[in-house]
Amino acid sequence: MATDFWTAVKGRRSVYTLGKESTISDERIQEIVAEAVKHTPSAFNSQSTRLVLLLGEQHNKLWDITTSTLKAIVPADQFESTQQKMDGFRGAYGTVLFFEDESVIQGLQAAFAAYQDRFPVWSQHTSAMHQFVIWTALEAEGLGANLQHYNPLIDEQVKSEWKLPENWSLVAQLVFGKPTAAPGDKEFKPVEERLKVFK
Amino acid sequence: MATDFWTAVKGRRSVYTLGKESTISDERIQEIVAEAVKHTPSAFNSQSTRLVLLLGEQHNKLWDITTSTLKAIVPADQFESTQQKMDGFRGAYGTVLFFEDESVIQGLQAAFAAYQDRFPVWSQHTSAMHQFVIWTALEAEGLGANLQHYNPLIDEQVKSEWKLPENWSLVAQLVFGKPTAAPGDKEFKPVEERLKVFK
Repeated sequence: MATDFWTAVKGRRSVYTLGKESTISDERIQEIVAEAVKHTPSAFNSQSTRLVLLLGEQHNKLWDITTSTLKAIVPADQFESTQQKMDGFRGAYGTVLFFEDESVIQGLQAAFAAYQDRFPVWSQHTSAMHQFVIWTALEAEGLGANLQHYNPLIDEQVKSEWKLPENWSLVAQLVFGKPTAAPGDKEFKPVEERLKVFK
Repeated sequence: MATDFWTAVKGRRSVYTLGKESTISDERIQEIVAEAVKHTPSAFNSQSTRLVLLLGEQHNKLWDITTSTLKAIVPADQFESTQQKMDGFRGAYGTVLFFEDESVIQGLQAAFAAYQDRFPVWSQHTSAMHQFVIWTALEAEGLGANLQHYNPLIDEQVKSEWKLPENWSLVAQLVFGKPTAAPGDKEFKPVEERLKVFK
């Protein structure tokens, strides 16, 4: 499905009302994630991003892990709203987990010592660009998605559950599914306060 | 000009051979940057990104500042390659400077103390998404671009030269212009080492 670049960028929203259905096949979802990891830029072309796509029961398991992790630390009398939020994520179709491979970052730090403080920051930039591409691409296919950050709370259990390399560091979780309601209007601060032009 | 989302994503490259011409009007460049700052997501919809578009003599001035800053710290017998690199950037058409407004981040930290360590990281994610959108959009219009990081070396002089607020923190510089040569082929690590699917 061809969508104009700006139509896709402007159409990207945080959608929280997601159902356990998809508008596209699992194969197409996997293709989108694979194309994103192939074509999104990375600092020094390090290709440091690692992605995990969870569908079906594997997606449910992620949110069960997150729910039980939070249950252990959120006061019981405040847990109801957390439980509702978790139920919302679990009720979606799938999740993309974004990791950065720390061994790649350490390799860059060793090779280019002058920038060793910068590589961890640029690695975060790299991850964020991948998050944006997949978020926008999935929504261009009629899905809704929202970006979560339950790292580092869930990192160890996630790595253990899916037997992921120890050097993969979790950065974000993109939850997606078929939207069950339209999101509200976007609010914008005036652009003239955020952009200056000198020519 | 309408370009398919994936065509734009796959077409985005680091292009270093840039001329002092543009494929589109200054008004269109400004429109792209304005649309990006309006529609690119930000953590908690904080809209923390601030952009400066430099064209013409203002673009030249940025690279003169960067060159003189580097001249003071790079050993004289190694400066020739730095000078050539700077001449390349200066020889391009324009630069977009990406800042984050630290006062917005501090506001979030005060309002949501539980996440105070995370907001600076998410602010970097926000900036990176803006970098990606503008880079990709400019190249979809036939321009070439590359992303540089001479911050924090040049921050104080840049803020002083263009009288920018003290709370704007520089994150990256996107140099762009009409490509004078085609970039080389991209090299990809195998996708199967970077993406795992569980369903």
